Amino acid sequence: MVDFRRDLHMYPELSFEEDETPKKIAEFLSKLGLEVKTEVGGRGVVGYLKGGKPGKTVALRADFDALPIQDEKDVSYKSRIPGVMHACGHDLHTAALLGVAKVLSEVKDEIAGNIVFIHQFAEEKLPGGAKPMIEDGCLDGVDVIYGAHVSSNAPIGMISLNDGSLLAAADSFEIQIQGRGGHGASPHMTVDSVVVGCQLVMNLQQIVSRKVDPLSPAVVTVGTINAGQNFNVISDTAQITGTVRTLDEEVRSLIENEIDKIVSSTCAGADATAKLTYTRGYPDLTNDKKEANRITSLSENIFGEDMVSQVKPIMGGEDFAYYLKEVPGAFFFVGAGNEQINATYPHHHPKFDADERSMINTGKVFIAAIQDYLNTESEVSGQEKVEILR
Amino acid sequence: MVDFRRDLHMYPELSFEEDETPKKIAEFLSKLGLEVKTEVGGRGVVGYLKGGKPGKTVALRADFDALPIQDEKDVSYKSRIPGVMHACGHDLHTAALLGVAKVLSEVKDEIAGNIVFIHQFAEEKLPGGAKPMIEDGCLDGVDVIYGAHVSSNAPIGMISLNDGSLLAAADSFEIQIQGRGGHGASPHMTVDSVVVGCQLVMNLQQIVSRKVDPLSPAVVTVGTINAGQNFNVISDTAQITGTVRTLDEEVRSLIENEIDKIVSSTCAGADATAKLTYTRGYPDLTNDKKEANRITSLSENIFGEDMVSQVKPIMGGEDFAYYLKEVPGAFFFVGAGNEQINATYPHHHPKFDADERSMINTGKVFIAAIQDYLNTESEVSGQEKVEILR
Amino acid sequence: MVDFRRDLHMYPELSFEEDETPKKIAEFLSKLGLEVKTEVGGRGVVGYLKGGKPGKTVALRADFDALPIQDEKDVSYKSRIPGVMHACGHDLHTAALLGVAKVLSEVKDEIAGNIVFIHQFAEEKLPGGAKPMIEDGCLDGVDVIYGAHVSSNAPIGMISLNDGSLLAAADSFEIQIQGRGGHGASPHMTVDSVVVGCQLVMNLQQIVSRKVDPLSPAVVTVGTINAGQNFNVISDTAQITGTVRTLDEEVRSLIENEIDKIVSSTCAGADATAKLTYTRGYPDLTNDKKEANRITSLSENIFGEDMVSQVKPIMGGEDFAYYLKEVPGAFFFVGAGNEQINATYPHHHPKFDADERSMINTGKVFIAAIQDYLNTESEVSGQEKVEILR
Amino acid sequence: MVDFRRDLHMYPELSFEEDETPKKIAEFLSKLGLEVKTEVGGRGVVGYLKGGKPGKTVALRADFDALPIQDEKDVSYKSRIPGVMHACGHDLHTAALLGVAKVLSEVKDEIAGNIVFIHQFAEEKLPGGAKPMIEDGCLDGVDVIYGAHVSSNAPIGMISLNDGSLLAAADSFEIQIQGRGGHGASPHMTVDSVVVGCQLVMNLQQIVSRKVDPLSPAVVTVGTINAGQNFNVISDTAQITGTVRTLDEEVRSLIENEIDKIVSSTCAGADATAKLTYTRGYPDLTNDKKEANRITSLSENIFGEDMVSQVKPIMGGEDFAYYLKEVPGAFFFVGAGNEQINATYPHHHPKFDADERSMINTGKVFIAAIQDYLNTESEVSGQEKVEILR
Repeated sequence: MVDFRRDLHMYPELSFEEDETPKKIAEFLSKLGLEVKTEVGGRGVVGYLKGGKPGKTVALRADFDALPIQDEKDVSYKSRIPGVMHACGHDLHTAALLGVAKVLSEVKDEIAGNIVFIHQFAEEKLPGGAKPMIEDGCLDGVDVIYGAHVSSNAPIGMISLNDGSLLAAADSFEIQIQGRGGHGASPHMTVDSVVVGCQLVMNLQQIVSRKVDPLSPAVVTVGTINAGQNFNVISDTAQITGTVRTLDEEVRSLIENEIDKIVSSTCAGADATAKLTYTRGYPDLTNDKKEANRITSLSENIFGEDMVSQVKPIMGGEDFAYYLKEVPGAFFFVGAGNEQINATYPHHHPKFDADERSMINTGKVFIAAIQDYLNTESEVSGQEKVEILR
Repeated sequence: MVDFRRDLHMYPELSFEEDETPKKIAEFLSKLGLEVKTEVGGRGVVGYLKGGKPGKTVALRADFDALPIQDEKDVSYKSRIPGVMHACGHDLHTAALLGVAKVLSEVKDEIAGNIVFIHQFAEEKLPGGAKPMIEDGCLDGVDVIYGAHVSSNAPIGMISLNDGSLLAAADSFEIQIQGRGGHGASPHMTVDSVVVGCQLVMNLQQIVSRKVDPLSPAVVTVGTINAGQNFNVISDTAQITGTVRTLDEEVRSLIENEIDKIVSSTCAGADATAKLTYTRGYPDLTNDKKEANRITSLSENIFGEDMVSQVKPIMGGEDFAYYLKEVPGAFFFVGAGNEQINATYPHHHPKFDADERSMINTGKVFIAAIQDYLNTESEVSGQEKVEILR
Repeated sequence: MVDFRRDLHMYPELSFEEDETPKKIAEFLSKLGLEVKTEVGGRGVVGYLKGGKPGKTVALRADFDALPIQDEKDVSYKSRIPGVMHACGHDLHTAALLGVAKVLSEVKDEIAGNIVFIHQFAEEKLPGGAKPMIEDGCLDGVDVIYGAHVSSNAPIGMISLNDGSLLAAADSFEIQIQGRGGHGASPHMTVDSVVVGCQLVMNLQQIVSRKVDPLSPAVVTVGTINAGQNFNVISDTAQITGTVRTLDEEVRSLIENEIDKIVSSTCAGADATAKLTYTRGYPDLTNDKKEANRITSLSENIFGEDMVSQVKPIMGGEDFAYYLKEVPGAFFFVGAGNEQINATYPHHHPKFDADERSMINTGKVFIAAIQDYLNTESEVSGQEKVEILR
Repeated sequence: MVDFRRDLHMYPELSFEEDETPKKIAEFLSKLGLEVKTEVGGRGVVGYLKGGKPGKTVALRADFDALPIQDEKDVSYKSRIPGVMHACGHDLHTAALLGVAKVLSEVKDEIAGNIVFIHQFAEEKLPGGAKPMIEDGCLDGVDVIYGAHVSSNAPIGMISLNDGSLLAAADSFEIQIQGRGGHGASPHMTVDSVVVGCQLVMNLQQIVSRKVDPLSPAVVTVGTINAGQNFNVISDTAQITGTVRTLDEEVRSLIENEIDKIVSSTCAGADATAKLTYTRGYPDLTNDKKEANRITSLSENIFGEDMVSQVKPIMGGEDFAYYLKEVPGAFFFVGAGNEQINATYPHHHPKFDADERSMINTGKVFIAAIQDYLNTESEVSGQEKVEILR
């Protein structure tokens, strides 16, 4: 696992530009004897492990793309590609999943069911690789799916998740206001796009304060406002951009609709016009309650109760969300922080690194989940229990 | 006059960089036999004409700086200096005033009083040349002052003015808001400088709507707001710039004070801080009622009643305002627009030009004003009337 | 004059309820030999004095209604009618005008022209008496009109006016916002009429700050906002009322239109609805420049230059405005303040009183204006000058 | 139970005015042989049941006050007290708890522990009875507490709760703004309290939109704004009232602090002053996770999994919250809706009624909880299990 991870780390590939990484994965899986599909949904790789006995089908997913960041770590496996870096740990996800494939392939005769290994491209960049891979059939026949993400924020050994909304839908919007410029001393001859823009920003505050159910977490943030170039000239236009975070599809649609309404009405009141571009990012990632509880229980058994943390939702996004819209499953965070090896930098930081033992931990949970799921959920009764972990 | 004007037009000099222009003026005035002071307040030139009889002292003022604009006219006297142009007509002001000096120097024995010719540098650029010239004594002994500005907006032959506030005080302000940036999904961990900035812009609207006497014209315009660089990041800072226009010194101070108060309180309410820089430009230009009426009556006699227009205040600024803070006087606009010679472009336009007959008209009003003033205001009674114009 | 005024003062009658006052006026005018029309436009009285020679027709106007205020003065001529009082001086206007009629009727043969005495009802209460009297023909054949108002703010002997906008158009508006009430803890189930109402009030500030020419005085004031009855219930409705003051008919229409636009757009942005009722009061009262200058010159002759003051517009209203929309003319204020006789209380105060010599002063200006107007404006040339005042 | 409940229902007593109700309760408990304290914290009654064996101490709580509502039901047990009514079901709570006391008193020898029956006055009215009863010692020696509330919103047989924040802290605020009134046409002479008040309401929106963690539900609602009495007069003062709902003590304090800051800064910016009165109501009611899970499991056993619902927090308040700030425990809702007997009206409605079987259900959960708690939590090991329910 460590070798494979470090190889990926040295030769990272950007989202939607992954060429060698999927080849390496496919080769590895093929050597294990799995049936392998490549170019799934574009650049995805899917490996199929048929168990020796009939049973349900469990999918596991790992993403494999890197980020446009210059690696500033001082380690032997530092990125060899200038300006590209595995700064979010997807290399560990991939290696961990391949490790799981190796373990399971060795005991496949004992497995009462099937395992699907989904190696996904392009998680970091909209529109993401999950959606096209699903459309290309990677979930066909799948009964449940599990996914994990290493986290340098949590110490090695820790598992974090919850049994509902875990990650937010993260959308963006851009508003282009068109007023009518003129001399700063003659506001009555103009449509002052600065005032329209500022009023708009203020009006948007009411979405969260008045329009959204207080029990449904939501954020509407205006990140930028830019208007005007001269202190004594009234500006023709104003540009506003922002982000919307929600944990509920209805609230998401409500907010999109409210922004549209507020933009229209604010501009109408001032004789301005505006163009709103609302771009949906990944949807909210919501764990299946039962599957999340399964991961929790199993992780408590493996790592101890103290090492499993039920967390509040996190307002960031992840395209694993798409899989969970299709089949039940759970996503969880695997602690990978370790001061002793400088694995303390936040994700997307040029010095980001992760404790490689997190790969083992990820694998342990995956394998326990498969074993537990197949034993308790398969309809084929009277069968012997799957015993992968001994 | 035309020759002198065209020479200036071909060799324009920027504000605070005038070298040759004042030399030419001083030489011209010296040749007329006037006593000449140079380097007044920096680059100003003042000519003194002592009349043959005792009487009051009248000052006339013309400015002589040019603008950083590329001349795009297609005329023989087009600017020879790349990127510099007499695009506001100060060349005509200078030539007209020199013409007046010539006429008066020829009849100086008949004049019961003295004439001061103030040739001012740097009207176009803060802090202007008027203030240092006054500080250097250009108004010493002066009883009244007249000034004029050509206007391509008004047709040749027209004189425009009013008997009170004619031009505005034009100030500028800059506000630097310091919030505390952070992730767009975690507004509660930040001080959102975009929202603070927008609220500030909205709050500033109340100065004119609620704080200023409705009978005192005033403008508070925010020309620019710039904050944030990324749609999903809450910005640390926001920058706002704007202009304030007033016709009354008390209202001006009120507005400066209100902006300060609103900046402080708006930031205090949001845990932000701000630095406000308020820069005073030229003060309001307010004509003396009696002198304005003198110019009106005399102009009606010269050009006809229909050709003299009483105008509302104009919200732009002019540093002639400083002279009128010291002595009574009047400033007026001299029509110089003429479609037939393409003198229709607005001031500061690359194709700006003016009907040169406006110089004669300026001179006529100046001379009439001197004659009328000296005849009616001089204390030396029993004297013969000054008869310059016949 | 004093007797007549004191009689009116003791028996004041409210606007649109004047019964005895017009009878007394009509009787007085009839006794002078004037042709008298009663019930003009309702309760108005018009007296016609035909001069002995042909000439133009000059109208003078006085209003005669009182106010619903309890007289608290301690004088012999205190109001005998409980709760009704001449607290604005209309009794003096009426008596002064009757005095003028008496003087003129005695010299009518010398007058080259005609005088129309307009005694108007209901100035204090919308829609006022001026409009129906005009519609009923009181200005037929009239070439010019003059009117005056006593002022306890100005000392006896003072005349105040200006040559343009003297009094404002005073309109009112009422906005009924319909939201959707609900529990204070569930804003997302409601349309919060409090927030809609408050946002509306804030948005209205932009009319004066951004939409109206800074050189055109205008006021938009919200006088009342009332919404909600319980701290923890979101209110269904909100009520807003306010006033608009302008000096220019175009600005007036602009503001009416902007309020409508802002009400609509603000409500649209919040899913609320609103009913706006905009009620036009009297229009702006704008003196004819020439006639105002006439009153100024004549008053300076009568009272001295120091006793004539050119004033800024006053943002209150007066239905004399309607007459000036039809014919040229001028309205002026006649000082009536006098500490020695306690004539210092503001108009509409229960202790309001006025120096009765203001009636003589009003009459002097009226008569001088008539004489001057008829002498200088009548087309009948070659005639002798009218000499009323000697 | 039914008899006792109906008796209470016929003779309801208002909060802080309960005289007969506590007497009846005390008498009932005494007859069962319990040690009874009366006038606990004012009007509370506490019964003590000592079990036959050593063990932990479990408290159960029921409230017994009624509401100032006229009973409009048409039933034999309709309120006999005009304008007072058990419209929230506290009569059922009391009767259920007395029923539990009866059952347990009959098996007290078998109980390895002690039971404390807390009959609380004045839940409906601030500051509530819970706090003074706690201060008077009602929780002394108590290890765990359970409480329940009938709910006509949920069908009979249903149990609803969650394992965290169940009910909100409900606070109120009142803001008295002092501006400086004046004529509507002269805003510059005033401090416009309408504009200050409206700006304040808008600024308060930012607390929820920007200052509170999106994951911490919170509401700031302005219920009323009242300012001004006349459309053309600028009002001296404005009054604002509102409510704040939170589920977290830190957020609660944050909001109180933010309101204070926004009131101060908004007023400072406008030269107004304000008096803010912030009144804390009951705190958030947060179930102990373990105890809530105990209630959930036991209820699922009793009523079936489908009849136990995990609910989102409810933004209303309940002073049971105070007990849970002192000892672990859980509060839950007991379905009492039944169309067939018209038990469908919302709480506090004049026709509110509840299915009386909800009392039995409440009792079942209470008894199961006691048995389970004493069996699993008591330190006295090796003992026989408590078997109350058979």
